[in-house]
Amino acid sequence: MSSQAEIVLKPIGVVRTVAVGDEVKDKTRISQIVIHSELAEALEGVDGFSHLIVLFWLHKILDEQRKTLKVHPRGRKDLPLLGIFATRSMLRPNPVGLTLVELVKVEGNVLTVRGLDAFDGTPVLDIKPFDQWDTAKDARVPRWWTKLENEKTQPS
Amino acid sequence: MSSQAEIVLKPIGVVRTVAVGDEVKDKTRISQIVIHSELAEALEGVDGFSHLIVLFWLHKILDEQRKTLKVHPRGRKDLPLLGIFATRSMLRPNPVGLTLVELVKVEGNVLTVRGLDAFDGTPVLDIKPFDQWDTAKDARVPRWWTKLENEKTQPS
Repeated sequence: MSSQAEIVLKPIGVVRTVAVGDEVKDKTRISQIVIHSELAEALEGVDGFSHLIVLFWLHKILDEQRKTLKVHPRGRKDLPLLGIFATRSMLRPNPVGLTLVELVKVEGNVLTVRGLDAFDGTPVLDIKPFDQWDTAKDARVPRWWTKLENEKTQPS
Repeated sequence: MSSQAEIVLKPIGVVRTVAVGDEVKDKTRISQIVIHSELAEALEGVDGFSHLIVLFWLHKILDEQRKTLKVHPRGRKDLPLLGIFATRSMLRPNPVGLTLVELVKVEGNVLTVRGLDAFDGTPVLDIKPFDQWDTAKDARVPRWWTKLENEKTQPS
């Protein structure tokens, strides 16, 4: 049994994109996820789904940054200081990114996806098919979050 | 910078539930997530959201099981043999569970949630607020998945 005290993950693949900096937040962008070739078989049937949940490792986050407990979303002082579990900030105890993407195509061990806000070289941890169980109708969000949404940028 | 070769996560808390076995799949069930007290501050503002995404470590999965590449969903031979990335099977290279839950209440470092399909003692890795960016309208799923949904059980 895996030790609970030490949870060790290994990348299943890597993100490839020409986008740099804030360009990765453009939800219309196309990226590739290159799955390690020895795991290619594990993609069989993934093309039956239009959308996937991608978990990835925010590899640019320093160990020291993982101790952050509160942030102003996007560093904006006009928004409240919040616990990091109330935000999608990259500064978290376990810096794992989660993004819902549209699956454009699958070719061998390469997934082409739309809307993955991850930098080139980002280690990918898991791919999960998306379905209705992952959706909540009429989900409630706080006012500061709506404010960011109205600015047409994804809250973080 | 964190080494990409070794990704080490640490639990932020633990699941508490009286449900055992398949009872945990009952989406109406209430569970507690007890966050480590030194991280309690990081929950501030989480009560502004009605729904949270919970990432947790599937601690009962053996290292050997992480090498699984294909499964019949739920072990059912009447469903196709699929790559594990096309399923929500617990047998995956990085056995991280992901569930959307309803937040019932927050008291200090304890979150009471509805619909968390995790066993008592499960290490929790991350809590993320849920919003419209995590939803896809008209998501397409394969026929075998719909078949399981029609049986009113969550596909895995």
